[in-house]
Amino acid sequence: MKRIEIDINGVLKKTIGNEGLSEEDIYQVSDKLDEFKKKLYKTPYPFMDLGLIRSYIPDIEVIKRSTQKIKAKNLVILGIGGSSLGTETIFHALLNPFHNLDPNCRGLKPRYFILDNIDPHKINRVIDIIEKEKDKTILVVISKSGETPETMSQFLLFKEILNTSKNPHQRIIIITDSKKGMLREIVNKEGYPSLPVPEGIGGRFSVLTPVGLLPSALMDIKIEELVKGAEDMSEYIKKIPHKKNMAILLAAILYLMDNKGKKMHVMMPYCERLSAFADWFRQLEAESLGKGSNGPTPVKSIGVTDQHSQLQLYIDGPKDKCITFICHEGENRYIPDSFPYLPDLDYLSGKDMKDLFYAEFLGTRRSIIEAKTPNITIKVNEINEYNLGALFFLYEMIIAFMGKLYDINAFDQPGVELGKIYTKAVMGKKGLEKQKKTIEKDLKIKGQSISF
Amino acid sequence: MKRIEIDINGVLKKTIGNEGLSEEDIYQVSDKLDEFKKKLYKTPYPFMDLGLIRSYIPDIEVIKRSTQKIKAKNLVILGIGGSSLGTETIFHALLNPFHNLDPNCRGLKPRYFILDNIDPHKINRVIDIIEKEKDKTILVVISKSGETPETMSQFLLFKEILNTSKNPHQRIIIITDSKKGMLREIVNKEGYPSLPVPEGIGGRFSVLTPVGLLPSALMDIKIEELVKGAEDMSEYIKKIPHKKNMAILLAAILYLMDNKGKKMHVMMPYCERLSAFADWFRQLEAESLGKGSNGPTPVKSIGVTDQHSQLQLYIDGPKDKCITFICHEGENRYIPDSFPYLPDLDYLSGKDMKDLFYAEFLGTRRSIIEAKTPNITIKVNEINEYNLGALFFLYEMIIAFMGKLYDINAFDQPGVELGKIYTKAVMGKKGLEKQKKTIEKDLKIKGQSISF
Repeated sequence: MKRIEIDINGVLKKTIGNEGLSEEDIYQVSDKLDEFKKKLYKTPYPFMDLGLIRSYIPDIEVIKRSTQKIKAKNLVILGIGGSSLGTETIFHALLNPFHNLDPNCRGLKPRYFILDNIDPHKINRVIDIIEKEKDKTILVVISKSGETPETMSQFLLFKEILNTSKNPHQRIIIITDSKKGMLREIVNKEGYPSLPVPEGIGGRFSVLTPVGLLPSALMDIKIEELVKGAEDMSEYIKKIPHKKNMAILLAAILYLMDNKGKKMHVMMPYCERLSAFADWFRQLEAESLGKGSNGPTPVKSIGVTDQHSQLQLYIDGPKDKCITFICHEGENRYIPDSFPYLPDLDYLSGKDMKDLFYAEFLGTRRSIIEAKTPNITIKVNEINEYNLGALFFLYEMIIAFMGKLYDINAFDQPGVELGKIYTKAVMGKKGLEKQKKTIEKDLKIKGQSISF
Repeated sequence: MKRIEIDINGVLKKTIGNEGLSEEDIYQVSDKLDEFKKKLYKTPYPFMDLGLIRSYIPDIEVIKRSTQKIKAKNLVILGIGGSSLGTETIFHALLNPFHNLDPNCRGLKPRYFILDNIDPHKINRVIDIIEKEKDKTILVVISKSGETPETMSQFLLFKEILNTSKNPHQRIIIITDSKKGMLREIVNKEGYPSLPVPEGIGGRFSVLTPVGLLPSALMDIKIEELVKGAEDMSEYIKKIPHKKNMAILLAAILYLMDNKGKKMHVMMPYCERLSAFADWFRQLEAESLGKGSNGPTPVKSIGVTDQHSQLQLYIDGPKDKCITFICHEGENRYIPDSFPYLPDLDYLSGKDMKDLFYAEFLGTRRSIIEAKTPNITIKVNEINEYNLGALFFLYEMIIAFMGKLYDINAFDQPGVELGKIYTKAVMGKKGLEKQKKTIEKDLKIKGQSISF
């Protein structure tokens, strides 16, 4: 098979009847995107500038070599949203799922902790662990604005802890805007090694910038291959006409599905290694397209696990979902015949676990088709850096194309600003006294409180 | 504060205008449920029989004491859907999030591995780990039917591995139907210690049966307290009239919200320890209510993490969601003033991390209210066995009440059967040749395949 194959039969009228789309429906939209694509490749969005991104590789390699000398045991990454989800996705796809349990974790294979929340319960447990080995801990702090309260509060904390270790300056690396923000001020003042988040690339489009590449390099992941996969995917999208172009077709289909009332876009990998990819997609689609009282809701689902949790709803529930399956033929395990006295187990004994895994996908997809639920299948030949880079870029382009179809700015997130202001007000930031009073009022309403 | 408090102001018209409900709307429905409740407590659903459940505790303690002698290093749990989600939720809430990294894991504190999928990539990595310590590994196999293909294939595999260890019979424990199924046949033939899944209690309602209690006991979690919390919640629900009854009010509200077009029920804990509770709820609601082309879609979301992923959509997207926040005042971490030259960090430096965490919740909720998105707040005073048992029972009752409102059977899952048949067909099970041909046909359609 090819590296990535897409099968859209499951969304077509000929497969699922009137819940589906005709090829004409799709081509009408994809044809428009073809026009848009041509303009786009002349004046690309910042995230599409893979030449710029490639230019960071040498600087990343320099930092990698210098931290390598530390023979680190722990890598702590502070970042939230787009600053952590890409790294999480790469690590989850390419490292052992029980990586941190390996007693040989050190050097370019340290234990890693990605702190994407501020619940003190979890932060305290990470500190319990690294405090014993703080001389052997590398800290990567990631925030585009350099002001993110969650990341800054964590940094205040970890800075103090590392201060009492040897040569802390060598082990703190900062990724932030090249000019603005408090993190940049800190870099300028204290001289930490740092890399930029390139201008105009927001968090959710930043996985292939230093935001995702530097942490990956510190785990010895082949970042050059990640970028190469994206580059080749970009060339493919540029070159292939819309009727055979997976980025354009998927954008058109997902858009049309939303219009048709399939407002939930389920991504369901039959591949544990891609389960975090669904989290990454979830941010990308929700934050880019959830605007103007519109936008689909992305849903993460895991094959086969969620057959025993969500499938009932996908089959018998409302016709409001479109499912993207992702599968890949991975490694195998032979299922031995441990209970020869049970003939009813013959369909499992002596078989390959990977065949059962694939059979469950095929069986589920068939039942989904018979329930007339639209579905797409993506098949990946191998989970490696190259294909992962290609998938990242593919979905970034799908969302960019969808942004055009919805006629919105896919690159901002104005809706989250208000909550940030209120948070700062509660924390006592000056000038926000009015907002603080509003929250105090919220806390005083007692009428409907019910207790156990 | 009380142990569990619920605030429903965020769903009321007086707070969010016409996107909300009037108190009369709610009471009209909750009044009906009050009637239903009275009948229900006379002829309860099987999961409500907490007396029966309590009666299992002595048998569980016997197994706990006998396995304790093994001084186990690893606990491997085979189960999927309702057979694993409850245990996962309890472990996640009550154990250290990095439990397995503790070098002292053994005895009643072994490392644990819950295998809720059959991806060979992950299974092989677990085997890599336990193979070195198979004499010190306890295996718990859970399947109500005793026939679940995922669990049976895993068991075939792990049985062979444990066969080459010392006294494997002492270290395999089976939880299944008391009479029927292949697992029961295996118990009868090979004499493994075993416990029943009580008659009539399906997977998603089984967390407080041996399904969730036995694994918990093996990790020294206080199962008596889990049951006590459920018992007290049951008494509370029985006793309190509908206008102040959290189970009835939440059932009425969630049902009315779905009717009002808020078809996605987001559960968003501001509490890492309850993040798996949202997974558990996700199965409970989806599989119980997703029937007859109807039923809400449960969505898991994590505070504060998903403020940087989903909040934009919740604020500016379609008005199709209702959010349940769960928060709790947990442990703290002081945020030191590590960058005194940055006055803009004053709102964080010298503050408590738990206050920031709570401020983010308050700020987010306020912004959600201003966006007129209906929301409920559940406040838990402490994350412990007792409260967790109460929360499990509370939500089981909410879903049971909602089943009544939707007028469906909340306890079956007919929609998943077809996929199982097709899976067995692909695996070559006799008598399913026709289904196998259908799948083979699916695989031959090539027309719409697009490749990279």
